[in-house]
Amino acid sequence: MKKIEQKRSSALKVIPLGGLEQIGMNITAFEYEDSIIVVDCGLSFPEDDMLGIDLVIPDVTYLKNNIDKVKGFVITHGHEDHIGALPYVLRDINAPVYATRLTMGIIENKLKEHNLINNTRRKVVKFGQSINLGQFRVEFIKTNHSIVDAAALAIYSPAGIVVNTGDFKVDYTPVFGDAIDLQRLAEIGKKGVLALMCDSTNAERPGFTPSERTVGRTFDMLFQEHKNTRIIIATFASNVDRVQQIINSAYKFGRKVVVEGRSMVNIIETATSLECLNIPENTLIDTEQLKNYPDEKTVIITTGSQGESMAALSRMAEDNHRKISIGPGDTVIFSSHPIPGNEKAVTNVINELLLKGADVIFQDVHVSGHACQEEIKLIYTLVRPKYAIPVHGEFKHLKAQAKIARELGFAKENIFILQSGEVLELTQEKAQVTGKVPVGDILVDGLGVGDVGNIVLRDRQHLAEDGIIIVVLGLDSATDELVSGPDIVSRGFVYVRESDELMDEARSVIGEAVEGCLDRGVSDWGKLKSSIKDSLGEFVWKKTKRRPMILPIIMEI
Amino acid sequence: MKKIEQKRSSALKVIPLGGLEQIGMNITAFEYEDSIIVVDCGLSFPEDDMLGIDLVIPDVTYLKNNIDKVKGFVITHGHEDHIGALPYVLRDINAPVYATRLTMGIIENKLKEHNLINNTRRKVVKFGQSINLGQFRVEFIKTNHSIVDAAALAIYSPAGIVVNTGDFKVDYTPVFGDAIDLQRLAEIGKKGVLALMCDSTNAERPGFTPSERTVGRTFDMLFQEHKNTRIIIATFASNVDRVQQIINSAYKFGRKVVVEGRSMVNIIETATSLECLNIPENTLIDTEQLKNYPDEKTVIITTGSQGESMAALSRMAEDNHRKISIGPGDTVIFSSHPIPGNEKAVTNVINELLLKGADVIFQDVHVSGHACQEEIKLIYTLVRPKYAIPVHGEFKHLKAQAKIARELGFAKENIFILQSGEVLELTQEKAQVTGKVPVGDILVDGLGVGDVGNIVLRDRQHLAEDGIIIVVLGLDSATDELVSGPDIVSRGFVYVRESDELMDEARSVIGEAVEGCLDRGVSDWGKLKSSIKDSLGEFVWKKTKRRPMILPIIMEI
Repeated sequence: MKKIEQKRSSALKVIPLGGLEQIGMNITAFEYEDSIIVVDCGLSFPEDDMLGIDLVIPDVTYLKNNIDKVKGFVITHGHEDHIGALPYVLRDINAPVYATRLTMGIIENKLKEHNLINNTRRKVVKFGQSINLGQFRVEFIKTNHSIVDAAALAIYSPAGIVVNTGDFKVDYTPVFGDAIDLQRLAEIGKKGVLALMCDSTNAERPGFTPSERTVGRTFDMLFQEHKNTRIIIATFASNVDRVQQIINSAYKFGRKVVVEGRSMVNIIETATSLECLNIPENTLIDTEQLKNYPDEKTVIITTGSQGESMAALSRMAEDNHRKISIGPGDTVIFSSHPIPGNEKAVTNVINELLLKGADVIFQDVHVSGHACQEEIKLIYTLVRPKYAIPVHGEFKHLKAQAKIARELGFAKENIFILQSGEVLELTQEKAQVTGKVPVGDILVDGLGVGDVGNIVLRDRQHLAEDGIIIVVLGLDSATDELVSGPDIVSRGFVYVRESDELMDEARSVIGEAVEGCLDRGVSDWGKLKSSIKDSLGEFVWKKTKRRPMILPIIMEI
Repeated sequence: MKKIEQKRSSALKVIPLGGLEQIGMNITAFEYEDSIIVVDCGLSFPEDDMLGIDLVIPDVTYLKNNIDKVKGFVITHGHEDHIGALPYVLRDINAPVYATRLTMGIIENKLKEHNLINNTRRKVVKFGQSINLGQFRVEFIKTNHSIVDAAALAIYSPAGIVVNTGDFKVDYTPVFGDAIDLQRLAEIGKKGVLALMCDSTNAERPGFTPSERTVGRTFDMLFQEHKNTRIIIATFASNVDRVQQIINSAYKFGRKVVVEGRSMVNIIETATSLECLNIPENTLIDTEQLKNYPDEKTVIITTGSQGESMAALSRMAEDNHRKISIGPGDTVIFSSHPIPGNEKAVTNVINELLLKGADVIFQDVHVSGHACQEEIKLIYTLVRPKYAIPVHGEFKHLKAQAKIARELGFAKENIFILQSGEVLELTQEKAQVTGKVPVGDILVDGLGVGDVGNIVLRDRQHLAEDGIIIVVLGLDSATDELVSGPDIVSRGFVYVRESDELMDEARSVIGEAVEGCLDRGVSDWGKLKSSIKDSLGEFVWKKTKRRPMILPIIMEI
């Protein structure tokens, strides 16, 4: 009896390890005494100033330091910002992974790529099913989102229940599978929920997000209007429902479908094998077969809806695609909105396509996968949590959801806008931030994970801005006499062939600095290098108002 | 008599030297026999891949090659994309500049900065006034835009009249001065217009752009709602009407006004001295005086509405501003829309401000300065040109205006979507593109104009992506023996202190390559360098999947 009481008095710790300063890198630890479960394990894409970086993953030092407690990874859905860091994090924390069918299918593709498939324990969970993980029980609840098989989680701990919506919308007429399980959310709400962690992405938008099915009607209309042209549709590879609806319209209008772009091909294969996608026989054809059909009897589904320069659509627009080129008589449909930051890239591709003579449709052929304000209110009202913890968004989105919660009657002190790393301790009696664990961005560049940090990035920014001037000279190690150079080489600074005079002057400035030092008997190479940097830097600034990196190299002969 | 007939039979050449592939760098030459006039002379801001570049100006080789013909620069309004290249182009082509009052005021500020004010002939032109330039006569016609004193131009040539709208909207209730002179445009239209060159920026948007005055009403409402806080408003420095309306609301609500940001201070000074801005006495105060007034009795007008990292608002948001910091109890209003490409930067600043506890209002406190579809139709219908030449926009905007022209009954062959550099020859009988003149982007980096070209940019991109590895070795010039090195130094590649092993291995890879070459008696330094590049490049790629720039430097001792 005493033991149980003691247990009851422990707090549930909610520790977001990422995802609260941005849309991306979602990962949250839930800790109760000796048990930790991790919800999602996402990556984020590099910010503009992270030059040369491929992707960013969370710092999971806290999990490493508590590795014995970690019972497993519980994944809400198969988007990169929720699963993308798994192949990196699993190397250090080899705990089992739990996810629904398609989510697991996508994770498994990743694990195969990273040669981790044989070392990772995995369990596919059905909606309505619960799994026991140490002191936790986690129930998977059906939701709707822009990817099939998205789940909300009810996390049962001795301190109470936390509901995490994952990314969701309320779609009463989904394309595949059931509508979000509002009944179950209500039932759990009735039991009493300690905290709700709800998707904030669209919390600034009033109203309701339209059903995915509305896009299908738009496709039918567009296929009807463009009966005499080839149709090329760009969308997110992972939006299986969208692909399904394109295929439905194609089938209805007697068109064959070609799939372009590696990620699109992969996801369609995975979704088809898991029966999340239903393609009528003789509908898919290979790109090579396109020539056997008249243009108006074909549809190309492609990646590149975000203007990604290496994606299939951009390559088609730039005549860099091996097999498909775009011209007058093509109708190109963007079934997507630009993700913030991609607006210009998308516009550039649209302009390229128009220049090629194509008809381009880029508005109103998309619906969001995230809940707007009325949907958020619905979930709050069904779940009726004690505490509100807005998640998944930039600060302005979290703030917008907090405002909604206030309107619903939540007291200010029961709403928590957390920062990544903060430890929120929850009991039935109170909730408070009690500490902070280390968090941060680990940069992935090629095979390197974490070997590019602030110093390297700062150097890349400096190099990008004004280039580099390298000054090389040889000193006799015995006499400290100049035996070679100073020579200068530059990259990314000026076009040297047209800047002879500048470079000659620069050389003589350096010569003087070096001679000056040597004459004064300066034998400290650090001082000599500083003198070169200062004099050349000043000269270059005066002449060009630029500050290239200056790198003196002294060779000992 | 014969001479006149001959003249009549000459064609008018319209030669856009920039501005037709983007919003920016507007400059168009009009040529008739021995006369050239240049309309506008703008810059553009660098694209994302133009690393380290400050601004971009047009290649005016064609004007240089025809310098004796150039009669003058005729400027429509004072925005950077219409005047920003003047200080650079005037160095080579010292022709007189014609502009309206405020436009000239802003140009003169630039000329002073560039020490060109004494060498540049300038003439302020009034609305309704015409100037004679060789075989041309140019009439300035009042329009409305997001800057005061914007003009459309009627360009009279012996071959006919071309109307160039400049950037415009139709504002029946402008804040300062008159509404656009629709009567005069109609009158000229009645005479017969050869071609209309009309602003395409908003040609994709249906309807009418609202009057600037509607923003004034919004300000009044917001001042009413936020009576108890300091108000900080970010907007475009050049939007004098907007600034006027902020001052009006401040005055009405008994608030003192502080102006922050160099460009904002400059433009307000210029506009005030030209009586385009009317500031009630004792309304403006210095930043230092802020502390003498309660917060709720002050307004700060600031630059930085586009999230520019060096602008006053960003510095305030990041606590980097010398005098003003933002906190709870501040209301920050963005009176602007993000220009395409700036969305993310603006969002970042909004998040920073919200984190500081400020209330941030960033929607619906702005109207565009450009004509929407119904306004474009109005101008076409008043001017009734023979030929339509959509200008000012990306290809998709030009295309959208062409679609409008088609709807208005223009034949396809009378609509010309030009590319920069194309020479369009116009007569009453026909219009056709007859040639192409050299055009292009000249990159300005610091004091350098055109000294950064594709090679330098490519190097900067390479350096930005993966950094640089420099390999230095000393060879005895007589014996070709290795007397020093090979040493390696890297920047922007990896954090060297944590990559000892990698760097050691790299050194031995290079050592082997060099020894191999020297053993084989290779004394061609080019071959030796290639061998270093190849072997090190391959090693690094295998180990890291990165391709840093590899720069071998051989010193002759």
